[in-house]
Amino acid sequence: MKQVNIGLLGLGNIGTGTYKALEMNREHIERTTGLNLQITKILEIDTEKDRGIFVEPAKFTQDPEEVFADPGIRIVIELLGGVEPATGFMVKAMQAGKHVVTANKAALAENYEILTGAAREHGVSLRFEASVGGGIPLIAAITQSLAANEFTELQGILNGTTNYILTKMQTQGASYGDVLAEAQAKGFAEADPTADVCGHDVANKLSILLSLVFGERVKPGDIPTTGITDITKEDIEEAASQGCVIKLLASASRTPDGLVYFVQPSWVNKDHPLARVNNEFNALFLKGNAVDDLTMVGKGAGPLPTASAVLGDVIEIAKGV
Amino acid sequence: MKQVNIGLLGLGNIGTGTYKALEMNREHIERTTGLNLQITKILEIDTEKDRGIFVEPAKFTQDPEEVFADPGIRIVIELLGGVEPATGFMVKAMQAGKHVVTANKAALAENYEILTGAAREHGVSLRFEASVGGGIPLIAAITQSLAANEFTELQGILNGTTNYILTKMQTQGASYGDVLAEAQAKGFAEADPTADVCGHDVANKLSILLSLVFGERVKPGDIPTTGITDITKEDIEEAASQGCVIKLLASASRTPDGLVYFVQPSWVNKDHPLARVNNEFNALFLKGNAVDDLTMVGKGAGPLPTASAVLGDVIEIAKGV
Repeated sequence: MKQVNIGLLGLGNIGTGTYKALEMNREHIERTTGLNLQITKILEIDTEKDRGIFVEPAKFTQDPEEVFADPGIRIVIELLGGVEPATGFMVKAMQAGKHVVTANKAALAENYEILTGAAREHGVSLRFEASVGGGIPLIAAITQSLAANEFTELQGILNGTTNYILTKMQTQGASYGDVLAEAQAKGFAEADPTADVCGHDVANKLSILLSLVFGERVKPGDIPTTGITDITKEDIEEAASQGCVIKLLASASRTPDGLVYFVQPSWVNKDHPLARVNNEFNALFLKGNAVDDLTMVGKGAGPLPTASAVLGDVIEIAKGV
Repeated sequence: MKQVNIGLLGLGNIGTGTYKALEMNREHIERTTGLNLQITKILEIDTEKDRGIFVEPAKFTQDPEEVFADPGIRIVIELLGGVEPATGFMVKAMQAGKHVVTANKAALAENYEILTGAAREHGVSLRFEASVGGGIPLIAAITQSLAANEFTELQGILNGTTNYILTKMQTQGASYGDVLAEAQAKGFAEADPTADVCGHDVANKLSILLSLVFGERVKPGDIPTTGITDITKEDIEEAASQGCVIKLLASASRTPDGLVYFVQPSWVNKDHPLARVNNEFNALFLKGNAVDDLTMVGKGAGPLPTASAVLGDVIEIAKGV
């Protein structure tokens, strides 16, 4: 059994889910991979909160340097979210020779070159399966299994909150405002839903995918982005009358005029693989010149699906250390 | 640029597709991976056939030992199909220190321990993404990205010929015999369709998945298997009247009585992610205890989609040699 020690930055929703999933499936992971994964240090201010997990108090630290300076830690999981201080922390971890796993789409979309450059410079792995599509293993598919393809088209439903709202508007004939209020009451939408409903969250994810799928670096602020705030019941009825549903799509395609990309509410024909991706589910549709059409559908958010992706990355790295 | 030499066993449909896909995307692969992949020897009796590709005559050999003994060859791609001589050739290649990539579900299903054991013993990689689901990157997903999950359920549409026949029976109200004859005329079904329509092809694939998803080794002959030959128009109409479609499913689930698995035509509710997987498309639905529901849909056969999976495996191995 090979023990690999891990530093965890952030014990919020996703951090707690990752801790839980690791404990829940510890025996399975040990038996199938021979890896004993141990989270030995956790950067977190709130040490008192009841998260439904037992964490030895000695694991907590409020000093990130303690994580970077710990020679026993081989992998740092960054789950703070936001561009800073997360980017700086990831770079420092890589400078210290640690491999990094992150779910942080905002930091990656904004600082893709800095982060991938630091990984190359310091000879460490930087993995971020959880940053786009939550538990759906789409980044590994694009970068590894499908590496022999040139891609011509990408369409994604990459935000669960907006897909939930659009689905309910469609199935219940309800207005945007009513469904948003219901989603907030149920905890499916944030108190401040701007990043989701205005499409910024999806633009971050599309920015990452443009680098991976098409090798083109586009900052999220340079992606034409329209959210769902202006979608009305009537828009949805009109689409339905033409055999379509409205989905907030991240879209990119190679055209004779170059790569065209945007985030916007779009009519999707009922026969398209993305048309039936409802509620909080996410999906990615890809067209490659060898594999042809490929669709992956799964949970794009939530503590355990995200933890599945984070731990998959951790296991891949841990096998090699 | 790192050159990696490859020996190819078999230049049939899939072998030719792999050769074509590599030439078609050579520049892309070189630019994105830094790998110069060269097929330097091809085991093939028929050197005269017009395959629409140019192969230097000197690459052909009729002696497999020439491939295994070539010290320049690091990876052997096995695309002969069938249990033997393919199994023996793969073992010999691994004994000679070559990594092996195969699309051969029959050999893997029958000789899983022998083949994976040989890879372990000789310290080489054995990859077989193309053996189940063609271009759909499901094996990498199960073994890598989703490695932190315990799975409770698996359902797959894993044979394009039977899914095409069932789809046409459903959409055209046609009989099994009529659709089969049409599919054979169009080249979608083999002259002898037994392995497909009787479910043996799917049983081979389910056998491989049972090892990977549930860690249980079951030979294909021990999987309860029913094909689609007895499905009538009336069966399909009856299912439709209850809001269901009939699909040939590979199915496995953990139950209080242990792992239950079978291959059989099954009613699938129209709201299930597999219900709309039509024609020649394949799909896999998985339920993991962290990732929850995950569905992958794509082309399960055909020269280029299969080549996508074969070359994805080759690239992963070539990165490490």
